[in-house]
Amino acid sequence: MRKFVGERAKRLIANNTIASVVKLNQYQTSSTLSSSNNCCNRSHLPRLNSPLNSHLRCYSVMASKGSKTAPVTLETLNPKVLECEYAVRGEIVSIAQKLQQDLQTNPGSKPFNEILYCNIGNPQALGQKPITFFREVLALCDNPSLLDKRETNGLFSSDSIARAIMVLDQMPGRATGAYSHSQGIKGLRDTIAAGIKARDGYPADPDDIFLTDGASPGVHMMMQLLIRSEKDGILCPIPQYPLYSASIALHGGTLVRYYLDEATGWGLEVSELKKQLEAARQKGITVRALVAINPGNPTGQVLAEENQRQIVEFCKKEGLVLLADEVYQENIYAADKKFNSFKKICRSMGYGDIPLVSFQSVSKGYHGECGKRGGYMEVTGFSTEVRQQFYKLASVNLCSNISGQILASLVMSPPKVGDESYDSYFSERDGILKSLARRAKKLEDAFNSLEGVTCNKAEGAMYLFPRIQLPNKAIKAAEEAKKAADAYYAIRLLNSTGIVVVPGTGFGQVPGTWHFRCTILPQEDKIPAIVSRLTDFHKKFMNEFRG
Amino acid sequence: MRKFVGERAKRLIANNTIASVVKLNQYQTSSTLSSSNNCCNRSHLPRLNSPLNSHLRCYSVMASKGSKTAPVTLETLNPKVLECEYAVRGEIVSIAQKLQQDLQTNPGSKPFNEILYCNIGNPQALGQKPITFFREVLALCDNPSLLDKRETNGLFSSDSIARAIMVLDQMPGRATGAYSHSQGIKGLRDTIAAGIKARDGYPADPDDIFLTDGASPGVHMMMQLLIRSEKDGILCPIPQYPLYSASIALHGGTLVRYYLDEATGWGLEVSELKKQLEAARQKGITVRALVAINPGNPTGQVLAEENQRQIVEFCKKEGLVLLADEVYQENIYAADKKFNSFKKICRSMGYGDIPLVSFQSVSKGYHGECGKRGGYMEVTGFSTEVRQQFYKLASVNLCSNISGQILASLVMSPPKVGDESYDSYFSERDGILKSLARRAKKLEDAFNSLEGVTCNKAEGAMYLFPRIQLPNKAIKAAEEAKKAADAYYAIRLLNSTGIVVVPGTGFGQVPGTWHFRCTILPQEDKIPAIVSRLTDFHKKFMNEFRG
Repeated sequence: MRKFVGERAKRLIANNTIASVVKLNQYQTSSTLSSSNNCCNRSHLPRLNSPLNSHLRCYSVMASKGSKTAPVTLETLNPKVLECEYAVRGEIVSIAQKLQQDLQTNPGSKPFNEILYCNIGNPQALGQKPITFFREVLALCDNPSLLDKRETNGLFSSDSIARAIMVLDQMPGRATGAYSHSQGIKGLRDTIAAGIKARDGYPADPDDIFLTDGASPGVHMMMQLLIRSEKDGILCPIPQYPLYSASIALHGGTLVRYYLDEATGWGLEVSELKKQLEAARQKGITVRALVAINPGNPTGQVLAEENQRQIVEFCKKEGLVLLADEVYQENIYAADKKFNSFKKICRSMGYGDIPLVSFQSVSKGYHGECGKRGGYMEVTGFSTEVRQQFYKLASVNLCSNISGQILASLVMSPPKVGDESYDSYFSERDGILKSLARRAKKLEDAFNSLEGVTCNKAEGAMYLFPRIQLPNKAIKAAEEAKKAADAYYAIRLLNSTGIVVVPGTGFGQVPGTWHFRCTILPQEDKIPAIVSRLTDFHKKFMNEFRG
Repeated sequence: MRKFVGERAKRLIANNTIASVVKLNQYQTSSTLSSSNNCCNRSHLPRLNSPLNSHLRCYSVMASKGSKTAPVTLETLNPKVLECEYAVRGEIVSIAQKLQQDLQTNPGSKPFNEILYCNIGNPQALGQKPITFFREVLALCDNPSLLDKRETNGLFSSDSIARAIMVLDQMPGRATGAYSHSQGIKGLRDTIAAGIKARDGYPADPDDIFLTDGASPGVHMMMQLLIRSEKDGILCPIPQYPLYSASIALHGGTLVRYYLDEATGWGLEVSELKKQLEAARQKGITVRALVAINPGNPTGQVLAEENQRQIVEFCKKEGLVLLADEVYQENIYAADKKFNSFKKICRSMGYGDIPLVSFQSVSKGYHGECGKRGGYMEVTGFSTEVRQQFYKLASVNLCSNISGQILASLVMSPPKVGDESYDSYFSERDGILKSLARRAKKLEDAFNSLEGVTCNKAEGAMYLFPRIQLPNKAIKAAEEAKKAADAYYAIRLLNSTGIVVVPGTGFGQVPGTWHFRCTILPQEDKIPAIVSRLTDFHKKFMNEFRG
């Protein structure tokens, strides 16, 4: 629905230029209209802009020396905001929320009794329990006076108490309620750096760590730093997690697509990177960075080490910043696959100077602590002066939340053999990861058993991204309903079964192909019912539209 | 120091255009240089841009159809980032951090034994204790399994247990580790709306509340929505909290200054607003919003109700969005002053339709929970379609952190008479607020007793903003050291006493006047030593530079 508000705005502006100028002119003196027309007619200048952008830029020049300011409407909002889309929480979620309300006020009114949110990687919303050790440490840090009381020993594990004391000692004045250093508390960054070293076998510098409220603000910060205008481009995988397209749109840059190859399990081919880079350069785009999501979102593939080396070599050769989304590094399900950080790959190739940003989050992994909004980025290969600009940007928002900072340090340094919590920690972690692998397999098999559906294996991450061959009649019905065909399918699925998936359109896909993203996160006891509802729905849908 | 890196970048680009083009050209084909020159020579177009901006825009056009992308340097970063400044964590804090390291490695090496951070409103960093009730609820929500254990009753107050249960019940699946609704958990927004109604006497709609990670992200979101180009302006008080200037710079808009009148206790005159608005419009700026900070930061004044009515009337007449920074609403020290929210003022005038955004934060007030990064904005007077764009922007970052959300609800609904925690809550709160009032008075008196210093009363907020009449010799010495005169004073003060204040330059001031901002937050037992160190330093400084 929101998407269509944006569409309406674009139509409004593209089709009704005259009416729109007249309307705006109520609020401006007429003396400025001529300069506005001048501006619109600068046909000798490169056409860098979308029609929406350039019209509104004209409006912006026009809107001078007036009396009352025009009210805030879609026409007077920042057009970059209008252009930004975010499917993971788009129309489909609005419909789901409405259905959920209906179910609450009128139980039994739908052919299902609950909404299953498979649209977003939000494990605890679907019943996953938090890791006990992490939450014990957080509770003690929130209320350190517990550490002075005898009863606490009976309520908390000894190592959570020890860790809370260690964490508190790392904070100036033990103040968990104070703003920290703009990059995050130094002691916590030390812990994270040690965790990275243990993971990679190469040292990490705590001064390279920027703690963030989840991975998203880090991605926005990098886009803000790198994008100067629509002539700056960022190479992104298609399909991609729409944070990237949204952030690039908000910062006014150009999304330069490279396609993952579905036929080879969503392979990332360097030849495709080269082709798209050249094409963008031919259009006058300065490509500044390459986004690699590993393990893949929404595609679930885990990059092979050799492939990663090729990507690093490509970035080095072409002068690109490598933005490595590594938030699913703990989520590996394929026995023959292993996560390698891009930093480890770079170091193993002897490259210390390549500009590389690795994003990590507490929201993913086996812990799935989305609500805590913790994460970090490790920033290497930039000059001191550029780094100072990163620091300045981080400073403007003062610091990320301290609970999220603490949790990021715990994730990178969980209990070790011999700690009191180790057994429970290991069994919780192992239980979740093994269960996720089983759920992924069951859903993958279910999708592959459906008529016209093919689904690659989820080697990692939290998603499956099946492809659907939709009958022509269904595609036509979707056109009549003014929906993308996969959105039409997803809305019908939701209304019939309560299962929320995200249409492939939201992530990007090869034109003419249709997909949807489905998380593997529903609890295991719900999977059989999901599979059966999905199968029933799909059969009926295909029968309805069979040619 | 960071500021000077920015300066260096600007000089580099402004003075060395030819060298810089040659350097950039290593990475581009020569065929694009001519179009770049074309672009630089568009003298018929309105000169909207700073020299830095326009040069880099030219570069951006130039940087097309090349081979390797130019490396990330100051010259190739987003110029808006370079232009942004944030004094509260600027050069002075870097020097302080260095001194603190020196003190740790070499105690006794300085004429002081600790650094007193009076640069930022960060109460718990200076020893203020958190409110017990708030932290009890947070700890229980972090580790809900405590609620199943008998020992918990001995460790937590009964109302903190009841509140934690209530809060958990408001969360779908009681999942504190899940992403919430993009605007925040509905039940918590209900509580906040009820708190606003109790405060104002007018209803509040939970759907108007957007929970945020502190106030800063809300301010950024509004700037992102409203600013289309450098032709859009935002009216901001001078002096102002530099979040506003930084955010406007980052989003590419124009800061339109209105001056508070120091002679009348930092009065906000509508005649001044009109004058600056007209002047901006004459320059072709579309002024889109007015920022009012009440209680004032850095100035500490509390607006009178009649003055607020004038401001509302002005915004209505001129079509401006009113951005009301009300994060210090609990921090009132003057017996004859009272906080009135702008929403209450609007409603009391019968205006329901004026676009108004009120920012609130858990970082300030008597609680000062900066590290929790909680806050909200209440958004009223916008159309449904525009509101959907707010929602979309909030969605791109998924949600604010849940602990911060919970805390925001507690702050707007603290214990009530009859609750087990009420007495301790009231005494903690009252103790902090009374002590802050005493500290403000002592520091104000101390400043006013210094030669050439005048200081208005802190009626509210957490700061004093004394004015210093610096001797000409000191101003000359500062020029020689390439510092603003107040920055020179502040650095000398820091090096002599360990007291960190922020020079007035960072907030803006009438040209030719010098100020600094000093928080009233050091614990009360430290105030006498601060006053005596400050007085000694000031006497010596004035004697050194006496004409």
